[in-house]
Amino acid sequence: MSAPRRAPGGFPVVGIIGGGQLARMCAGPAAELGITLSVLAEAPDASAALVIPSAPVGDHTDVDAVLAFAAECDVVTFDHEHVPAEVLSALAASGVPMHPTPEALVFAQDKLAMRERLTALGIPCPRWAEARTAADVTAFGDDVGWPVIAKTPRGGYDGKGVRVVASADDLADWLERAAAEDSPLLLEEKVPFTRELAVLLARSPSGQAAAWPVVETVQTDGICTEVIAPAADLDTDTAARATEAGLRIAGELGVTGVLAVELFELPGGEFVVNELAMRPHNSGHWSMDGAVTGQFEQHLRAVLDLPLGSPKPRHRWTVMGNILGGDHPELYPAYRHVMARDPEIKAHLYGKGVRPGRKIGHVNVSGDDLADLRERARHAADYIEGAVTE
Amino acid sequence: MSAPRRAPGGFPVVGIIGGGQLARMCAGPAAELGITLSVLAEAPDASAALVIPSAPVGDHTDVDAVLAFAAECDVVTFDHEHVPAEVLSALAASGVPMHPTPEALVFAQDKLAMRERLTALGIPCPRWAEARTAADVTAFGDDVGWPVIAKTPRGGYDGKGVRVVASADDLADWLERAAAEDSPLLLEEKVPFTRELAVLLARSPSGQAAAWPVVETVQTDGICTEVIAPAADLDTDTAARATEAGLRIAGELGVTGVLAVELFELPGGEFVVNELAMRPHNSGHWSMDGAVTGQFEQHLRAVLDLPLGSPKPRHRWTVMGNILGGDHPELYPAYRHVMARDPEIKAHLYGKGVRPGRKIGHVNVSGDDLADLRERARHAADYIEGAVTE
Repeated sequence: MSAPRRAPGGFPVVGIIGGGQLARMCAGPAAELGITLSVLAEAPDASAALVIPSAPVGDHTDVDAVLAFAAECDVVTFDHEHVPAEVLSALAASGVPMHPTPEALVFAQDKLAMRERLTALGIPCPRWAEARTAADVTAFGDDVGWPVIAKTPRGGYDGKGVRVVASADDLADWLERAAAEDSPLLLEEKVPFTRELAVLLARSPSGQAAAWPVVETVQTDGICTEVIAPAADLDTDTAARATEAGLRIAGELGVTGVLAVELFELPGGEFVVNELAMRPHNSGHWSMDGAVTGQFEQHLRAVLDLPLGSPKPRHRWTVMGNILGGDHPELYPAYRHVMARDPEIKAHLYGKGVRPGRKIGHVNVSGDDLADLRERARHAADYIEGAVTE
Repeated sequence: MSAPRRAPGGFPVVGIIGGGQLARMCAGPAAELGITLSVLAEAPDASAALVIPSAPVGDHTDVDAVLAFAAECDVVTFDHEHVPAEVLSALAASGVPMHPTPEALVFAQDKLAMRERLTALGIPCPRWAEARTAADVTAFGDDVGWPVIAKTPRGGYDGKGVRVVASADDLADWLERAAAEDSPLLLEEKVPFTRELAVLLARSPSGQAAAWPVVETVQTDGICTEVIAPAADLDTDTAARATEAGLRIAGELGVTGVLAVELFELPGGEFVVNELAMRPHNSGHWSMDGAVTGQFEQHLRAVLDLPLGSPKPRHRWTVMGNILGGDHPELYPAYRHVMARDPEIKAHLYGKGVRPGRKIGHVNVSGDDLADLRERARHAADYIEGAVTE
């Protein structure tokens, strides 16, 4: 594996395991900061490999490949949570600094571990239980009310990690697999949330932390389609408590790098934590254009233990609209219409082939009139993906 | 020469001849837009080659190298003005679209051609003359007043292209070389300017144009050290007339891509054109953080004949401070201090080795208090270059 080419002046090499769009979007900020990136990519045409010169192809589950990759880097971080524990242990043993650390990352990899830890910390969570048997499921559902949410703590079965179940019967196949693997399922109450929020922050190994404003995330068919930054009409006390919960989680779990805490907002200004992600996150894409420091720059600063940048918004509102793959493989020709219609749209494409429902890009737009921005972001995203033609 | 890897979706390849920092700073916007860049680089460690995967090494004066490079690109543009006319002609004959075109570029390459053309258009210029002999110099100096400015129309002698001369004797060596090359010198009056301004705009092949606000550029020992965007206390009528002159130059000369028009502001709100550059320019680096559309994104949009983005400032003021090479080769350690002191500083390093006086990076900072921003930009730039240590 050839070594990444270092810039003169003492600038470090940051290695990213995984060559998806999150690694790709670090490329611009890294070039600006003078930092060299190296990406362990899934394929030569991985999203990040298209824009980063050092992008050796290798498997993130292969200890030797990961160690050889990491040996050329000053610090290693991640594009996703899928690096197995044994690879993380070997990496830690090799002495290359890694952020987040395996000790923190487990709480983003294992949802049962996350629920146990957050509950112990007193962070508000949905009611939850571990389930190994149909009787466990029935008891939990009868207690909290049906339907309930069932989750595989790590990864998923056949690509699915979440199911809404109306009875234990709906979960028979998962329970069978869980028993075979001696690995319990996670059950959660179906929370009557009013909307979804996210707290995004970065924390450095030295313990400095900086949080962006709390945002609203809009999901369509389980996929994030829109983010409104900051969340509209959010009670300032709720926002402060949510941010404080995020900072507390980061500190208690020892998170380093960007942390996303997804929340359900409940009637009356309460909230519960839905999921954690320890990396730049879809809920923070708005910050690339909408904040003084975007999440990708901030993640690099955090994993390098540099002082963090200001998370201050540059505008009253920024709206992010995800571009999802549709039936239309030719994305570029849409630029002519989208850019002519709205000279303030910021398009971000990931260099990925179109597959239905796949996240292939996003747009950001900032300004003072939220309803107008939402319409513009939605139109631009829909037009690029081919969902609208005028 | 291996072909640059194209992204799926119909996205084009933009080739840039020259791998300096201007090419490098296109990398982030290109990745965001999904556009592939390819750079004909001076060396494997050229500034742009460090951050762009397709960066074949080749000589911009070598017709075969340039044609082989361009054959893999959908459009070709430039990092600098030094591609010789015969190479440009061969490139034009090969049929690869090129922006700016050789017909426009000559006015950025040849200062005598520029003066003749601008004068014919009625654009205000310093008084000027062509000089082949000492008598020409004496006659011009006696007419406009001594000292006068002498320029080599193309490139320079021994790296110098401008000299201030108090008499024809001061120019004896240049006149001798000019006679030997049968190539006249350009003489210009020394204008009693109050400050230097720059109009930066982009124009597309379709004729759409968009101008950023007029900025003030501050030069120290002939090198741009600071840009204030927009220029403070600039008369609105002067700003409008300067912008109009820039747009008229772009249209009449058929400029495509970014055009920088450097101006001297005179007492009474008048101005004259100093220089033209047909590429992203130091006077526009502020726009990377300070405008909705930065100059590097806009240049890519223009040369691809995409609709142009909004040049609207995101903030009341943005100040750019250039980082010049000093005695201190280790730049990265300064980040700890600079970033901790000012979380809003945006640092841009070019991956270049330190040489005294060489432009190796810049900082931007935006806000409402101009005096404060100027102090912060200057301190950050000075600290990174090693000129101050606290």
